[in-house]
Amino acid sequence: MAIKLHGNPLSPAAQRVFLALAEKELEYELVFVDFATGQHKKEPFISINPFGQVPAFEDGDLKLFESRAITKYISYAYAEGTPLLVHDPKKLAIIGVWLEVEAHRFDAAGNKLSFEILIKPLMGLTTDEAQVEELEAQLGTVLDIYEKRLAESKYLGGEEYSLVDLHHVPIVNNLMKTKVKALFEKRPHVSAWAESILARPAWQKVLDDIKL
Amino acid sequence: MAIKLHGNPLSPAAQRVFLALAEKELEYELVFVDFATGQHKKEPFISINPFGQVPAFEDGDLKLFESRAITKYISYAYAEGTPLLVHDPKKLAIIGVWLEVEAHRFDAAGNKLSFEILIKPLMGLTTDEAQVEELEAQLGTVLDIYEKRLAESKYLGGEEYSLVDLHHVPIVNNLMKTKVKALFEKRPHVSAWAESILARPAWQKVLDDIKL
Repeated sequence: MAIKLHGNPLSPAAQRVFLALAEKELEYELVFVDFATGQHKKEPFISINPFGQVPAFEDGDLKLFESRAITKYISYAYAEGTPLLVHDPKKLAIIGVWLEVEAHRFDAAGNKLSFEILIKPLMGLTTDEAQVEELEAQLGTVLDIYEKRLAESKYLGGEEYSLVDLHHVPIVNNLMKTKVKALFEKRPHVSAWAESILARPAWQKVLDDIKL
Repeated sequence: MAIKLHGNPLSPAAQRVFLALAEKELEYELVFVDFATGQHKKEPFISINPFGQVPAFEDGDLKLFESRAITKYISYAYAEGTPLLVHDPKKLAIIGVWLEVEAHRFDAAGNKLSFEILIKPLMGLTTDEAQVEELEAQLGTVLDIYEKRLAESKYLGGEEYSLVDLHHVPIVNNLMKTKVKALFEKRPHVSAWAESILARPAWQKVLDDIKL
């Protein structure tokens, strides 16, 4: 198969790529990377990603890493399925702003919260409650800005679902299983948005496929 | 003038946008944002960037924030001057990988180092030497991977200078004024690359314009 995804279904970054492939209705081969035996820190994996983190991606002779670079490639290279990026430079620029906001602001708080509350207990580690409180305040500030934005446009990037919304899905999905859900629920536009991006058939298919 | 850049010449993020405008040979109006009076945390600035950080950008009725989103818009929307992004999806995907590496890995270490060593003393604050040591180790790991990459291709994104290299310039320029310069100099390909990206006429013009 031309497309190979090297990843672990537990990784939110890998889930982001699973979801882009599902929205584009693309077939691929999953190459399972076993964290337990440190496969991601050894050859042949590190010849694709020298930083030793999942996911890595192959499409024929093209080898990529960094989940958000992989999803952008999938969006540009494949016309089928859901359009995830637009061609108009001004509309693309607005999507670009919110792509950066997700990567630098939402993820900074959301991914760490998901790790503290959801992943640490799975690994037998203790959640740092002071850290959780600080991260919840940080995420709250981001969600206040999202609430204003989503009062003006249906999705973060504009009137249509786009790669911006997609990039949020794995962490939103994790947080909705925790007490952080309350931060979403008290903001009506954020709450409706979160519900709609989690309900998409492509994400439901990913959850089915990875048995999460 | 159609293009307005709201920024402060001291900000590396604003410098990134100055440089993209210079590579594209575009005229613009600089709207100075005074950190001392907190202009970046008040209206009218926060109606462009609700997160209250420079730079913000206007092109006619288009309003953008996040420096890396602004430079991508400039690269796509203006054909004149230096080509900073390519159209071929596979070549663009490789550039995309290294754009993410800059934003998530190089900047995480380099920007903080620049702040600790260069900016803190200017603000009358004390450099945290333990933090500097840790960040130097982190940056060293990134530069080891750059050294391998730059042995294979002239620039990080490929054989041509691109937005990837451009995004590094302000922080590389800052670090070269500090002891961190040694980390660059001991890696021959990284050292030649740093020298070549700092020597470009567009960056020299920016330094001239902002009197740094």
